[in-house]
Amino acid sequence: MALNKNNVEMVRNAVGRMVPLEINGIKQYPYMGVGKFRPEGRKYAPKIATCIDYPSDGNKLTGSLKEALIKSGLKNGSVISTHHHFRNGDLIAQQIFDIAAEMGLRDLVWVPSASFECHSPMSKYLEDGTIHHIEGSMNGSLGRYTSKGKMTGVGILRSHGGRYQAIQDGDVVIDIAVIAAPTADMFGNATGDRGPAACGLLGFALADSQYADKVIVITDNLVPFPCYPWQIQGNYVDYVVETDRVGIPEKIVSGTTEITKSPDRLFIAELTARFCMEAGLIHDNFSFQAGAGGTALSIGNYFTDILRENNWKAAFARGGSNKYLVKMLEEGLTKFILDGQTFDLEGVRSMRENWNHVNTSPFTSYNYHGKGNFAQMVDVVILGATEVDVNFNANVVTHSDGVLLHGIGGWQNTLLGKTVILPVPLFRDRIPVIIDEVSTICGPGELIDVIVTERGIAINPRRQDLIEKVKGTDLPVYTIEELKQQAERYCGVPEKPKFGDEIVAVVKWVDGTIIDTIYNVID
Amino acid sequence: MALNKNNVEMVRNAVGRMVPLEINGIKQYPYMGVGKFRPEGRKYAPKIATCIDYPSDGNKLTGSLKEALIKSGLKNGSVISTHHHFRNGDLIAQQIFDIAAEMGLRDLVWVPSASFECHSPMSKYLEDGTIHHIEGSMNGSLGRYTSKGKMTGVGILRSHGGRYQAIQDGDVVIDIAVIAAPTADMFGNATGDRGPAACGLLGFALADSQYADKVIVITDNLVPFPCYPWQIQGNYVDYVVETDRVGIPEKIVSGTTEITKSPDRLFIAELTARFCMEAGLIHDNFSFQAGAGGTALSIGNYFTDILRENNWKAAFARGGSNKYLVKMLEEGLTKFILDGQTFDLEGVRSMRENWNHVNTSPFTSYNYHGKGNFAQMVDVVILGATEVDVNFNANVVTHSDGVLLHGIGGWQNTLLGKTVILPVPLFRDRIPVIIDEVSTICGPGELIDVIVTERGIAINPRRQDLIEKVKGTDLPVYTIEELKQQAERYCGVPEKPKFGDEIVAVVKWVDGTIIDTIYNVID
Repeated sequence: MALNKNNVEMVRNAVGRMVPLEINGIKQYPYMGVGKFRPEGRKYAPKIATCIDYPSDGNKLTGSLKEALIKSGLKNGSVISTHHHFRNGDLIAQQIFDIAAEMGLRDLVWVPSASFECHSPMSKYLEDGTIHHIEGSMNGSLGRYTSKGKMTGVGILRSHGGRYQAIQDGDVVIDIAVIAAPTADMFGNATGDRGPAACGLLGFALADSQYADKVIVITDNLVPFPCYPWQIQGNYVDYVVETDRVGIPEKIVSGTTEITKSPDRLFIAELTARFCMEAGLIHDNFSFQAGAGGTALSIGNYFTDILRENNWKAAFARGGSNKYLVKMLEEGLTKFILDGQTFDLEGVRSMRENWNHVNTSPFTSYNYHGKGNFAQMVDVVILGATEVDVNFNANVVTHSDGVLLHGIGGWQNTLLGKTVILPVPLFRDRIPVIIDEVSTICGPGELIDVIVTERGIAINPRRQDLIEKVKGTDLPVYTIEELKQQAERYCGVPEKPKFGDEIVAVVKWVDGTIIDTIYNVID
Repeated sequence: MALNKNNVEMVRNAVGRMVPLEINGIKQYPYMGVGKFRPEGRKYAPKIATCIDYPSDGNKLTGSLKEALIKSGLKNGSVISTHHHFRNGDLIAQQIFDIAAEMGLRDLVWVPSASFECHSPMSKYLEDGTIHHIEGSMNGSLGRYTSKGKMTGVGILRSHGGRYQAIQDGDVVIDIAVIAAPTADMFGNATGDRGPAACGLLGFALADSQYADKVIVITDNLVPFPCYPWQIQGNYVDYVVETDRVGIPEKIVSGTTEITKSPDRLFIAELTARFCMEAGLIHDNFSFQAGAGGTALSIGNYFTDILRENNWKAAFARGGSNKYLVKMLEEGLTKFILDGQTFDLEGVRSMRENWNHVNTSPFTSYNYHGKGNFAQMVDVVILGATEVDVNFNANVVTHSDGVLLHGIGGWQNTLLGKTVILPVPLFRDRIPVIIDEVSTICGPGELIDVIVTERGIAINPRRQDLIEKVKGTDLPVYTIEELKQQAERYCGVPEKPKFGDEIVAVVKWVDGTIIDTIYNVID
């Protein structure tokens, strides 16, 4: 054990990384390996509420967000949570901290389910001490700010499932949850599938509603009771606030939502689909999850073609929905979409209209401290990565320069699926993606089965079954070292990022242990 | 304070009844008045689970109910819960105790959400010590058994909402919940709206699934994952058992499900509807809850006619559903049915087919220790009673002979609605219904607004607004004393039941305090 600059004890975890035993004054556990950390104790127990304290007519309307925050007991050090279903079109998170700053409050903790570029103005509140640290994700400019070592506290990065786990287990105790809702009633029932700022679902706010001390629903589309579906149940809600606008619809759809046009990426997509067929991973009633990137979307389209040609149906498709998945559903090629987050307006429409386009939550899909979860049941999982190393460990949060730029999302949670495939380019901007050692380990190599690049496929030696299956095919299968060497042949051996010795953030594993430590980056 | 035969301290509560301060070794609180008892502390916190302990493929199928019970740790003193959505057609509850008796276990506690005549064989397990006591309802022959003072422990009667409150707050800690499900998947997702034993919904088992240590789903209709809707979420479930038959469909529909043909009852129904109209209680967007008895059904039909004639729509109808409510919904005369329990097969069909026929739970509808509940928002509540006294206190659990024969159901919870009307006959079998003092107080008079009988209407003096509204109409309004005198003129002054001094059960109020004590009845 050793003390680092932050003056906390460090210990080497099961993937060989030094991690702190304390963060922001709270005891931590080092990652112990997949399925090794056994939680003890009981779930977080919220205070017992009573109808005495709530309006007898059910009307919880409150004059303003500020009033609701004050009634909720907003004070120095409060832990405030928000959700990210509006993605880059969120208009509410910043308002909360504008109000807090105006009130002169300090040392708040912000627990978003994810952050986006629209949240970059929040750095001023990190700067002036209004916000002590972020537990969630520090994307884009908030990530750069964090990597400079400028945040007062230490950031905590969690997966979507890890966030549910942490809230459920009391690893993070939320004082006030603010749930921006596209539609709600005066009792606090709320839904994301309709209204001018419809964003599909509100599953990322479920844990917040269940466990936060105070829950505020803010909406720009108040409807008569009952607001149904009630994705968020009013029985968990303290105050309802009406406002002009909770989200900018055109920015809710953000990120890549179209199939890639890059010939290299298309080739990777096709190769991935071919691999899945040859390895027998696609069959009637199979299930899959693919992300929203251009390559993943393209792979999904190949899957659709394969299903159609074979007269097969997928049992379910999990993950964020988009127009391609919706087409698959409406064509009858998948029986269900089990959706965690809608990525485009077709996804929103379909969730509203199709009974078998189901809104799920990190509780059902990802929580590792539940009695099982959906992610484990998925046959084929298609994911991205910023870096993969020769031990199949992968990184999704920092770039090759060591700068924190992304959240984990559901990435770690889906690694528990049956076969995990990472279609990645061999290099990006002449920087290899497959390297000796990833800057940050987000997922342990033992859970990553296949890497597909435009120049060949590497199968994890732990998956001899897959290696056997594709023997004798014309698939370009190499060892991961061979892929790495190819990358270095094109790009040279990449320089390692230059880290300082200040811990700026930690990456939690799905069970709440720390899998890696992120240090400040030296320019 | 005094000690009674059970050797527990007794205290007089806010409605003047002597109640014990301890039941089955657990500390109790006396009823303090409506909205007076303020709960302290936190919700019950179940153990943190981990995916490590559950099959990685999500398949929780277990060989038999016995195996699942043993794996769940069934032992002497275990607290076992079941739900009553199969009503008189339940085939599962008894099997659990057959297994326990065969294993030679003793002192189990049975926590059904209600019991029916089909459960009368359970008395043998009360007799031989397999079951120590029942917390739920002791209906029919189980009630008679209890009233004889033959149960080892003391029975606890709770409303549907009170049961949710008690489980949520840890007043009763369930070791093993057995949830019989008309349809389920191997992960434990379950629904009541389809399958050979379809019973509509499974809301009464929600608390059990959320808070019990171990949860067993047993089904006779196993479907591929995902079973959707998932009224019960597999993420709460430990074991799934397949069996031949969970319920007898024709007995699921039990009790009165047809409009009354009795001229007296029809007159009460019509008078109730007229009262509601004259008092301005029915209007566009009003809401109501009516029970499933013949009179209540008939009143619902009058409401339907009034809505149709005035071109109005109800905002929602709450309560158990039946073919009359479904017709109302499908004719567009109510925007929603917020359903807690389906009373006939049309209710089951409609819940499956109509998006606005919504399955609710005691959490949303009734839990008094929540942040509000739906029952409070209902404009007009139509309920029954076995007895009403001159203080408007009412009884629903014991008969005029003092024998325990009914559960509370949602009755207490719905008293929190805006206007509560009890249409009751002035006498039954020549025994007055309106008397000086009810045998058992289930609901305090301050929450009961109007009594409608075939010989006149009494309005609670607390509701001067209603008295004003119907002044000058031809409605036959009397004081409650006048109604009582009328009843006595026909039937004479009724004899009081003869109670012993042994506490056989207590009646909880919606907040977990004891509102009344039930003693053994002397023949």
